[in-house]
Amino acid sequence: MSYEQSQALFRRAAAVIPGGIYGHTTPAATVPGEMPYFASRGQGCRYTDVDGRDYIDFMCGYGPLVLGYHHPEVEAAADTARARGACFNHPTDLMVALAEKLVARVDFADWAVFGKNGSDLTTWAVMVAREVTGRPKILKAAGAYHGTHAWCTPGHGGLIPEDRAHVHDFPWNDVERLTRLFQAHRGQVAALVLTPFHHPAYADSQLPTPEFVTAANCLCREHGALLVLDDVRCGFRLGAGGSHQKFGYEPDLSIYCKAIANGHPISACVGKKTHQAAASRVFLTGSYWNDPAPMAAALAVLDIVEREKLAARLDLLGQRFVRGFIALGKKHGCPMIASGPAAMPYVRVEGDASFVRTQELCAAAAREGVFLHPHHNWFLGAAHTEADIDEALERIDRAFARLTG
Amino acid sequence: MSYEQSQALFRRAAAVIPGGIYGHTTPAATVPGEMPYFASRGQGCRYTDVDGRDYIDFMCGYGPLVLGYHHPEVEAAADTARARGACFNHPTDLMVALAEKLVARVDFADWAVFGKNGSDLTTWAVMVAREVTGRPKILKAAGAYHGTHAWCTPGHGGLIPEDRAHVHDFPWNDVERLTRLFQAHRGQVAALVLTPFHHPAYADSQLPTPEFVTAANCLCREHGALLVLDDVRCGFRLGAGGSHQKFGYEPDLSIYCKAIANGHPISACVGKKTHQAAASRVFLTGSYWNDPAPMAAALAVLDIVEREKLAARLDLLGQRFVRGFIALGKKHGCPMIASGPAAMPYVRVEGDASFVRTQELCAAAAREGVFLHPHHNWFLGAAHTEADIDEALERIDRAFARLTG
Repeated sequence: MSYEQSQALFRRAAAVIPGGIYGHTTPAATVPGEMPYFASRGQGCRYTDVDGRDYIDFMCGYGPLVLGYHHPEVEAAADTARARGACFNHPTDLMVALAEKLVARVDFADWAVFGKNGSDLTTWAVMVAREVTGRPKILKAAGAYHGTHAWCTPGHGGLIPEDRAHVHDFPWNDVERLTRLFQAHRGQVAALVLTPFHHPAYADSQLPTPEFVTAANCLCREHGALLVLDDVRCGFRLGAGGSHQKFGYEPDLSIYCKAIANGHPISACVGKKTHQAAASRVFLTGSYWNDPAPMAAALAVLDIVEREKLAARLDLLGQRFVRGFIALGKKHGCPMIASGPAAMPYVRVEGDASFVRTQELCAAAAREGVFLHPHHNWFLGAAHTEADIDEALERIDRAFARLTG
Repeated sequence: MSYEQSQALFRRAAAVIPGGIYGHTTPAATVPGEMPYFASRGQGCRYTDVDGRDYIDFMCGYGPLVLGYHHPEVEAAADTARARGACFNHPTDLMVALAEKLVARVDFADWAVFGKNGSDLTTWAVMVAREVTGRPKILKAAGAYHGTHAWCTPGHGGLIPEDRAHVHDFPWNDVERLTRLFQAHRGQVAALVLTPFHHPAYADSQLPTPEFVTAANCLCREHGALLVLDDVRCGFRLGAGGSHQKFGYEPDLSIYCKAIANGHPISACVGKKTHQAAASRVFLTGSYWNDPAPMAAALAVLDIVEREKLAARLDLLGQRFVRGFIALGKKHGCPMIASGPAAMPYVRVEGDASFVRTQELCAAAAREGVFLHPHHNWFLGAAHTEADIDEALERIDRAFARLTG
């Protein structure tokens, strides 16, 4: 039994695409040869690969599918908008309605803008912070992912020294190092850029300590720097009003993307009134950015997030899944470590510095029909039911048996 | 008679969006108060604004709507893909098929990658050129638009000196200045970035001279720099195989976007085999980039472009429109200047350095139901028929009468 169609398609891909599959879905980032490479179709919390294998999905497209594939209410909203036409010479009323909705929803937000990706708006937010402050320096946590642009890409190719001349890293939760960076660059720091919690690849997730959150807020205020919250991955998963509330951050700008429109391409940055004029001076646009369909999808998703108390539901589902997972590890003599919020947990084999055992477990889970990632946090979605979680745990039980049997 | 609903919606927008409407569709870039700000619905080559006014559209969403709003074949292809699911943990077979199609279509292309916007891939191409050459310098034409990223944005806000430390401008078609830049930065130039023809805002378009094209090709070859063709705006409008063929460029990388999927959000960069390994080392991804629906739309559009001989058709339509427009100017004693290829022409009032007369004409045309832009090239689309062109010219005749009457 193998991933024949995935492999065959990848051979075709490698001939005409650099790396075959690039970016975050590259097979090299999972378990090459032991997991699917290409998808075929999806419904709810399940999808099928090109070999016809079905998976209960715990990656949700690396985040976007927060309500599952083909959520009827979201698709209907997008379809209605699309039937009016796409990509006009102007925005539609939906752009205004969506900005109003975000301003009403996010406590500190007075305005919003929209892009297509997280990267579009994390980079724009950095430019806004530079415009507001007239300063160049950006402080960020080492290993944090803020997109693919040169100032922050996790890649090494194509960079020149100037790209990061004013970008300085500190270890997550390290108040002393963060304080020292602010002091060393006094009067030069435009922004502190943070994810709500630390979710690097190839490492456990780390929640922020209360001291770190306080320090982030106070240092930004004291030094006149903007606190930019990269809520791209977490936003609306951990709370209906943005993740800053859960942890106590006081952001000047927050960026949302993955959970905002259930896979329809849109991202958003919200900010405070005090920065609105500066924001209007940082040019921002794209060929398809006025397209109303993703805005209609986002309006529907934001309604559902609140109405169905999504964050609480994902937390409960995640707890059930993580608790069950840990118990299975114990049962099979393979102790597991869980980190991150339950709604987007990361679970790995304990004492597995090389990730080899975790990779073997994820490969075995894939063969049993559960898609997990060996080195990246997972995502619960509203399409998961308790029964799906329990079915996934039964399959993972069999995966453990493959591994330890 | 006024744009009451546009104005009312803009007042709401200005409260919650920096600038109200930002980017290329900002009212400030057209004729504030005298043209529509928000669209409502579209079909074929016509759309309706929020005040219920209909326009024959000569901007095509600033390019993307090359086949008109709601092209049935394209929408059916996208819908079929979307019904399978969106935004999976993996690409689908459509990504491979689209890369294969572009490699087959574009003569020099051995591979392709996909993004969501022109900016995504013009910037990535610059990074690929730096990775290939190990050099930092980028040469580009002054006033050319290559996207919103810091190295090239037409905006001024949020920039720091390092953003453009290695970006050098020369005047379009100026072989001597281009040659001197290559010489001054000998061994340091990674890429020459060019649009196929020069289409700056607030200026006439300029076709490349044969000497300029030859110099661009030879200088890149001589100095070991990559020729990056930003075919975002023109690609597949001027020829089914990319615009380099029309003018004789020999690009290493070409970027397509606007006409590739009739408004569905996707862009593409194609390149030569010799650069494929370097390209695979420059990290490239985005949350929604695997989404199969825009890829299905692009596959359909590329078929239609070839099957219906789109470039020849747009050229004929554009010639009819521009010829008629010039004749109307003569008739009304308001001589007009046309520039650029007929398929994407720019027509303005002669001797109108301030653009005020051109703005008045475009405002009058809008009131007669024709959408033209006073400072940006226009776009013909396959949804325009000869009858639409003639009807537009009749309306423009009345607009001239308003202006000169």
